[in-house]
Formats: sequence, C-alpha cells, structure tokens
Amino acid sequence: MNPSAPLTFADIETAARRLQGKVRRTPLLESHRLNAWLGGHRLLFKCENFQAVGAFKARGALNSLLAQIEAGRRPERVVSYSSGNHAQAVAWAAQSLDIPARIYMPEGVSPLKHQATQAYGAEVVLTARRIDSHRRAEEDAADGAFLLPPFDWDDVICGQGTAALEALEDGAAPDAIFAPCGGGGLLSGIWLAASKLAPKAKVFGVEPLCGNDAARSRRDGKLFVFDDAPKSLADGVNTLSLSERTFSYVRHTDGVFEIEEVEIAYWTQWLTHLLKITIEPTSALGLAGAAKWLHEQDTPRNVLIVLSGGNLSVETRAVVWKRNWLNVLPSAQGSAGREVSVD
Amino acid sequence: MNPSAPLTFADIETAARRLQGKVRRTPLLESHRLNAWLGGHRLLFKCENFQAVGAFKARGALNSLLAQIEAGRRPERVVSYSSGNHAQAVAWAAQSLDIPARIYMPEGVSPLKHQATQAYGAEVVLTARRIDSHRRAEEDAADGAFLLPPFDWDDVICGQGTAALEALEDGAAPDAIFAPCGGGGLLSGIWLAASKLAPKAKVFGVEPLCGNDAARSRRDGKLFVFDDAPKSLADGVNTLSLSERTFSYVRHTDGVFEIEEVEIAYWTQWLTHLLKITIEPTSALGLAGAAKWLHEQDTPRNVLIVLSGGNLSVETRAVVWKRNWLNVLPSAQGSAGREVSVD
Repeated sequence: MNPSAPLTFADIETAARRLQGKVRRTPLLESHRLNAWLGGHRLLFKCENFQAVGAFKARGALNSLLAQIEAGRRPERVVSYSSGNHAQAVAWAAQSLDIPARIYMPEGVSPLKHQATQAYGAEVVLTARRIDSHRRAEEDAADGAFLLPPFDWDDVICGQGTAALEALEDGAAPDAIFAPCGGGGLLSGIWLAASKLAPKAKVFGVEPLCGNDAARSRRDGKLFVFDDAPKSLADGVNTLSLSERTFSYVRHTDGVFEIEEVEIAYWTQWLTHLLKITIEPTSALGLAGAAKWLHEQDTPRNVLIVLSGGNLSVETRAVVWKRNWLNVLPSAQGSAGREVSVD
Repeated sequence: MNPSAPLTFADIETAARRLQGKVRRTPLLESHRLNAWLGGHRLLFKCENFQAVGAFKARGALNSLLAQIEAGRRPERVVSYSSGNHAQAVAWAAQSLDIPARIYMPEGVSPLKHQATQAYGAEVVLTARRIDSHRRAEEDAADGAFLLPPFDWDDVICGQGTAALEALEDGAAPDAIFAPCGGGGLLSGIWLAASKLAPKAKVFGVEPLCGNDAARSRRDGKLFVFDDAPKSLADGVNTLSLSERTFSYVRHTDGVFEIEEVEIAYWTQWLTHLLKITIEPTSALGLAGAAKWLHEQDTPRNVLIVLSGGNLSVETRAVVWKRNWLNVLPSAQGSAGREVSVD
C-alpha cells in the first residue's frame, strides 16, 4: 500500500483486523482528581506505555510487515534506523515474524535502548552520526532489505491509527483528541480513525515549542524543516519535520499546540503521580495541550489523550524530576496551574 | 467482628462481597522478559498501585467502616493516625460514606501526603511526634470517635485479604505468593484467602533486613518489637512490630524473606521499567523475595506477587534512582543478578 492514493478510514480498519490479538489492547485510564482539578471535564488516557515494546510504535511496525506478507512480499531481511522507540518496535515485529532485522543507531544512544533492541533479537549497528544511520539503512534497502521507515509510510500511519480506533470502540466519546506530533504518523492515523468513528471530535497535535515544525508548517502552508534536530525533553518527537505524506493529513487537523519545556516536565510528573504509570515526557504533550484547550471551554468536555510510550532512560528521568512540581496543583485557572501553590 | 475468634476464609469472602464494586478490581500484570530472565518462571503482579488512594489500604479501611454500618454501629466520626497510605485510605473511605474523619499525622510528614489526605476531605491534625498522633487518636476514640487502626483489626485484615482473593479468582494459580510485611495485616489476609483458594501455595512475607521484626518474631516464637521505627527505603513497612493478632496468622505462613536496601532500590527500578508502572519501594519487596525463592527452584514455578502501592514522594524517588541499576540485568543466577553486567 506504498505509495498510494490518500488513506481512508477503511485502511485503519484493515490494519486493526491485521493487528487483532497481535498487539495489546491497551487500557483507558482516568484520574477523578485530575478531572475535578481541571474544571469538571473528563480526560481519558489511552495508555500506549503498556503496548508491546512500551510504545505505540509496535503497531505501525507490525502492520507494515504483515501487510508486506499479505501482499506476497515477505521480507527476507528488515532494516531501519532509529535512536528511539521505532528501533525496538521494528526489532520486536521482525522477531515475532521470524525475519532477521538490522537497526542502525547513532553512537551515544542510551545503553538501555541499545540493549532492549538487541533483546528483541535485532542486530544493532552503531554509526558515527544520525545521518550515517539513515544512509546505511538505505544502502541495505538498495541491496534487497525491506526498509521500514519511522513515519513516512502508509502502513505505519494505519498501524498507529489503530490506537485511536480501539479507544473510540472502547467507549471514549471525545469532544477532542490530543496526541503528540513528531513525524506525524500517529497524528495522521488518529485523524483518519476519528474521521469515521468521531467525526465531530476535534483532533489536535501537540509538539514542543522548541520543535514546532508541524505548527510552522501549518502556518506557512508548506513543510517546514529544521536544520538540526530539536533537543526537547520530549525526545520522541525531536524530528526535523513531517513528511509531505503526513503533512497531507496533519494539515486537516484542528490545530497544533506548542508546549514549553517546563510544562512537559510538569505534566509528566503529575501523570506519573496520578495514574501510577511510567511515561516518557513525550506522553505528557497531549495533556499539556488538552489543559490549554480545556481552559478555553465553557462547558464540561470529554477528551481523549493518547500517551505515546513509557520508555524513560535514567538520565531523562533525572531531568524530569530535577524540580518538584507536585507541590503545584493542576487547576482550571491556567495551562499548568503554576500560579496555584499548596500551603 | 472485633475482637473475635480466629478469622477464616469465610470472613475474607464476606469482605469481598462488601467491597464489590466499591474498590477497584486491580489488574494482574506480567513481564515476559522478566519471566525469561529469572529462569522461565511466571510472575504475576497484583497491581494495588492502581487501587483507590494508590494502595491496598483502601480495602481494609472501607471494609471496616462498612462492617460497622452493617452491624448497626454507623460511626459519627472516624479517627486514625498515620504518616502513610492508611491516612489517605481512612480519609477516602470515610468521605465515600459521608462520615467526618480526622487524621493525626506527625510533623514532617510529606506535603504530598498531607495534601492528598486533605483532598479526600479529612481534617489533618499535626502532632510533634508519632506517639502523640497515636495518643490523640485514642483520646478521640475515648470521646466517641471510631478509631480505625492500620492493621490490628479483624475487618482491616479481611479487607486487605480481598486483594489475594481477586487475584486467585482472576486466574493466578500460584505455587507461591509473596507480599510485603509491615504490621502484617496484608500478609494475614492473604494467608486466609490462600488457605481456601490456593491451599497448596506457599505464602511468604517479605520485609527489609533493617526492619525484620516479623522474621525475628518467627525465629523467637514470640512478638519482637523494635524500640525505634526502622528507616528502610520501603517506608510502608517501617513498623515497630506485628500485633499479637497478626502474628497469630503470620506465624503460619511459610517464611519471611529479609531484603537488603540495595535490593529494594534495584527491584523498584526494574519493576518500574518493565511494567511501566509507578510503585513505592515497599512494592518491590515481594519481587525481591520471589527472586530469592525462585533461585532455589528446580522446575518452572508460578508466583503471585502483591504490589502494595504507588505513592512515591519526590524525595523517595530521588533515593531510588540515585544509582542506575538498569544496566545490571536481572538473572536466574542470583537474587538481584548483581554479578551480571551489560557490556
């Protein structure tokens, strides 16, 4: 299904059928205290931190390989490049289908991610720079390996969209849906799922202010590309840009919120504390955007927030918890409620 | 039901009926990687971190108040003393039944616990020392308030036991069950639940080596009482002793494992990382004990491990993560696998 005409909801359904029983149907969690604090709204969190490999990326990777097999093109070898959750997702998906996988990673990648990718059976090859990882993967592809890109691929988009499809089938009836936006694969898939199952719901992307390429692309009406990767605490969305493919969907969403770094740490702490889960900072983006949107609402709203994953290095954890934000209660009065302090 | 003849499984069943739909039926989670690393066993975790108030304590507190009401003794006021999860549990249970609650806490209790207890509607009164909290609560009781003790109370024991009852009903078929042991309320309840639903399963308590009063009591054959409260990282079990009541059950269990502080930090990190949950260090005790027991087993075993809660202060979190243990893989070779390092 790559390249192809624009995707539709039917393509998300196809992916969901393919992934049935092969990925986890992750739970929807909520915090009554958070609902009350933010002004009597209802916030449901789709917990992809509990997905295989600890992130929604498992969906897109497995859907892509299954689609190839269905089309009679079973890969002999899979290759990809990533320093993040996509690496583990490709390794996991390939292992589950007994296909050898090689992942190129830039030197300096965290030992934990290196080890986890190997634990899923992939060969890990370190390269000097990020761009070398990309180049080496393309060389392998020219040599016959199946290159599974992190977001610029229809089957990846459709796989990621199944996270929203499940949540909507499981009873979320949102007025608005929020998800982090890096390369835009997840957000594109969510928009496609909602187009049929929640056509009146608004769909918002959320990205770090320091990595606001999607917001800029929407303002400019054309793809904005950073020269250097952003360095947000939300390390799952430190991409240079959307692709033309994902931008073609993201431009139809209802907006992209831009979040300051301190808000990312703030909401990561509160989500960890209230839901008793482990999330990576990228997962906090959706709530940060939702808090801003809810602040503008006059009536109680239902929102669905997709938590992207829970793979948190010890180093990132230390940055998140450097300052204690749990003494500043969330409130309906401001985006992060930083004005309100506990006495 | 206080004081009374020795409790039986029927009393746990009564508590479970009482609590049905009023506490959360928490999930059983597992990690396939952990199962494999520890030697091909199966470890199921009963996740009471997802319980109301973030800890199993909600069960015992609510069961106690409901039992009073059933017996025609609806309390006009509830009082308790605690610097831990029991405080929030009493506040939450009383609020849900519209009964005013007062909790005495020693000065220096974390602002987060203070605030959470107030958020559940209780009046919090700070006292100079822990012993003053206890005394003031007893004065209120003499004055007509219902004093809800943290563990030395039959209905508390029965409430806590419903955590194990649920897990056993939900399909856990353990060869052994592990739970943290502080005052012994949870462990006593688990032993009672297992006596009928898993009569062949061994039941083990787990406590910090520096707070090993239960192990000493078993060795001595009589209650051992610390002069000063232990100062373990596992702050949920820093009790002076069991009570005669809980010791009468704990003495029938199959043993109490004693865990070093470094192991508590080690397993807290790995559980957080592998299950993508937030737990307090006390929750790691069960796994620490299970790892020791599994190391001695010649055949694959099923174990049930009760995670006590997820209320973690920013200060305790910093101690847990001061050193990175995620570069030392768990293994079947030793209790904490500290000999094995990742290259």
